Amino acid sequence: MPVPLTDPALIDRFAAITGVQNALTAQSDIAPHLIEQRGLYKGESPLVLRPANTEEVAAILRLANETNTAVVPQGGNTGLVGGQSPLPGKGEIVLSLTRLNKIRSIDTVGQTMIAEAGVVLERAQQAASEAGLLFPLSLGSEGSCQIGGNLSSNAGGTAVLAYGNMRQLCLGIEAVLPDGAIWHGLRALKKDNTGYDLRDLFIGAEGTLGIITAAVLKLFPAPAGHETIYAGVDSPETALKLFRMAQDYCGPSLTGFELMPRIGVEFTTRHIEGVRDPLAEPHPWYVLIDISSGQSQEAAREMLEGLFIAADEKGYIRDAAAAETEGQRKDFWKLRESMSWAQKPEGGSIKHDVSVPVAQVPEFLALADAAVMKAMPDARIVAFGHMGDGNIHYNISQPLGADTHTFLARWKEMNEIVHAIVLKLNGSISAEHGIGQLKRDELAAIRSPVEMALMHRIKHAFDPNGIMNPGKVLASR
Amino acid sequence: MPVPLTDPALIDRFAAITGVQNALTAQSDIAPHLIEQRGLYKGESPLVLRPANTEEVAAILRLANETNTAVVPQGGNTGLVGGQSPLPGKGEIVLSLTRLNKIRSIDTVGQTMIAEAGVVLERAQQAASEAGLLFPLSLGSEGSCQIGGNLSSNAGGTAVLAYGNMRQLCLGIEAVLPDGAIWHGLRALKKDNTGYDLRDLFIGAEGTLGIITAAVLKLFPAPAGHETIYAGVDSPETALKLFRMAQDYCGPSLTGFELMPRIGVEFTTRHIEGVRDPLAEPHPWYVLIDISSGQSQEAAREMLEGLFIAADEKGYIRDAAAAETEGQRKDFWKLRESMSWAQKPEGGSIKHDVSVPVAQVPEFLALADAAVMKAMPDARIVAFGHMGDGNIHYNISQPLGADTHTFLARWKEMNEIVHAIVLKLNGSISAEHGIGQLKRDELAAIRSPVEMALMHRIKHAFDPNGIMNPGKVLASR
Repeated sequence: MPVPLTDPALIDRFAAITGVQNALTAQSDIAPHLIEQRGLYKGESPLVLRPANTEEVAAILRLANETNTAVVPQGGNTGLVGGQSPLPGKGEIVLSLTRLNKIRSIDTVGQTMIAEAGVVLERAQQAASEAGLLFPLSLGSEGSCQIGGNLSSNAGGTAVLAYGNMRQLCLGIEAVLPDGAIWHGLRALKKDNTGYDLRDLFIGAEGTLGIITAAVLKLFPAPAGHETIYAGVDSPETALKLFRMAQDYCGPSLTGFELMPRIGVEFTTRHIEGVRDPLAEPHPWYVLIDISSGQSQEAAREMLEGLFIAADEKGYIRDAAAAETEGQRKDFWKLRESMSWAQKPEGGSIKHDVSVPVAQVPEFLALADAAVMKAMPDARIVAFGHMGDGNIHYNISQPLGADTHTFLARWKEMNEIVHAIVLKLNGSISAEHGIGQLKRDELAAIRSPVEMALMHRIKHAFDPNGIMNPGKVLASR
Repeated sequence: MPVPLTDPALIDRFAAITGVQNALTAQSDIAPHLIEQRGLYKGESPLVLRPANTEEVAAILRLANETNTAVVPQGGNTGLVGGQSPLPGKGEIVLSLTRLNKIRSIDTVGQTMIAEAGVVLERAQQAASEAGLLFPLSLGSEGSCQIGGNLSSNAGGTAVLAYGNMRQLCLGIEAVLPDGAIWHGLRALKKDNTGYDLRDLFIGAEGTLGIITAAVLKLFPAPAGHETIYAGVDSPETALKLFRMAQDYCGPSLTGFELMPRIGVEFTTRHIEGVRDPLAEPHPWYVLIDISSGQSQEAAREMLEGLFIAADEKGYIRDAAAAETEGQRKDFWKLRESMSWAQKPEGGSIKHDVSVPVAQVPEFLALADAAVMKAMPDARIVAFGHMGDGNIHYNISQPLGADTHTFLARWKEMNEIVHAIVLKLNGSISAEHGIGQLKRDELAAIRSPVEMALMHRIKHAFDPNGIMNPGKVLASR
């Protein structure tokens, strides 16, 4: 079991690795690293280290392992499950990857980029774009989240449908193990069947098995044509039919399929500056469909029109607007991407990040709505998300006029109601945000002892002293 | 360390699990399970068990674990690295998955199939096709290889470019652990960030961590249009330029890009019945390009023609033939798929299954050819494969008139020459066939101690008694 870091002499030894200017010990300097954006956690730490490179990360972990000091890796600190927050009262070091911010290389022929863990996602996107290529990962927090955090949480976002999540977007990684050894796994190979899949173990491990310091990311041809359509539909059932049609018709050119409820569009147009509803009349549900073509803008437009005609013939669409300019396209997406933020001015929001098999999305919504409304008849359910991935952000805004504190006190109760339905449909209680602290005990409760035992055995095999981000994903043993 | 199975009473206890009719003890019955198609290995076993279901697999492993009996899982017995062959003199049980051959369900809306380990790949393809969908994995041995083996070797094949390898084609698995516990991980979710990636550990582990008994496989919309073009090009450099152009132009509609040398086309047209060269004149190199469209045959044809015109303008193509019928399309592919077999009548062949970053394929071929020709000036190099994946089957046919035995005695020497170049280019010595027995010691020699130690720790965490397929992938410890 790790020992809380309190000894000033040991703090000095850690600080000597990064240099004192990158070893923060004043609580005012440390404070920004303790904030958790949803306000669910208040971390504590005596020391934030900001190493400059992989070797310094290795030296820190070596010393931490020798001295049984817990280390919490942190990227852009945008995680939604408390995985990046040091636990209170445990004297844990925060290891910030922010200074490992180099894009080491871009290979335009092989279409790969080697980025360090601290590279901000938006910068990786821009660097790919400047090279005439696309790095497709796209998230609401892309202006501040970092590649290392994206990898450690196996980030998803809006482009998973066509390009996959972070595990699919990464060919190789460099990682520091808990004992300070460096695994040089920066391979840029599409096929490599040489032993166990270590890469995918580190990805999504939320910093509990070691620290990813760099990665080979897959890049893609930048689409030559791009079209986005925003359509009003009458129900999630119709949205599912439309999704199936779009998938058949567009194949892998279907690069986005998002579902939004009327109430979400109302919140967003009400609270987010510059967002308006592209359709004149209200509709019960909306879908946002993104189509990309490698050939031309015309080809994308043709595909969009063909899909629209076919969908219209079947009566799937009540009304629709296609983005006519790139600016409009961005506006359509802003409506979707700011939907979570737009709930803030409406008071408290109890969040869920769940997935079910795509075909079960309408059933999930019907069952969950019924169960939630039974427990809280005036709840305002804002269920939206990546329909094409079966991933719904099932958020519940507080009833009009309710007390926020009293409402948020029912977080766990509402989680249990919603997750029970998710599990009934063989779904996941964390589709893309991970486990962290927030869902750790719930994971242990819902998964089989066989599966939990395997995970604990892996944790112990990689980190026998339990120094890496203790108490996240798995309870400390 | 496992103990050789010799005790008749223990053999009877194992036989009682499957029933004696599915417990083969006569060497004549066992023999087919010991054959290894390349003749590199001759296995030995006192007992072949053919369980009917997951529970029987679990009962076998439970007893094996209690009695320290080694178990070698076997599917269609088509593996190319000896992973499925029981080691001589070790008294290992062969556990054949052949009777776990049910397709448990197909979900046409969610586009998934649950197939048991013993389902032959071709049957899975057909079942998907009958449901109007596509299961894209395609290999030369698809008529006999099985889904379980495909998973355990993370199979690749000709459709990886657009659809990924087996790891990407599988959403969830059911597996029996070495102690007989069953992990029920048959999830059909596109997104699920709830802990460590156990699925991808079992996939590609070549039966050393447990036995996969069933899997949720991803299905895809069957393309509405399909085009194949066979083109003569002057060099791998030009083929690479053409590949980049095709990738930019077709995006994810580019579903195959194979490279073949003149000598391979000569061998194939000479020895494989019904195969002819679609082009009148010989060319130094050939590419086979496959394009799929979700929209229509016309859309695929248009894309193909557009690509051809652009490539012709750049002077990339010397001559080309587009398949005019589905029969012709199959013929074109047969030329590619029978290229390995066509080497047999030409004498011995020393094989390599390597990958390098795609952009380095021409450089790899140039360097490898020079090195091989230096060591064996009259070697006949037949280097072909999945160019779009950077995966080349770099095979060397014996010189004309050479003695096969003397030639094959240089297998290891040639491997070392070729693999040294692969490693210089940060490539993989096994792109899709795995490690098995064949490359086990080489893997340990080329990989860092850090990486090997991690793999051994995983092996020990899953299989502390070392009963699962011992000596494959990793040396027994």
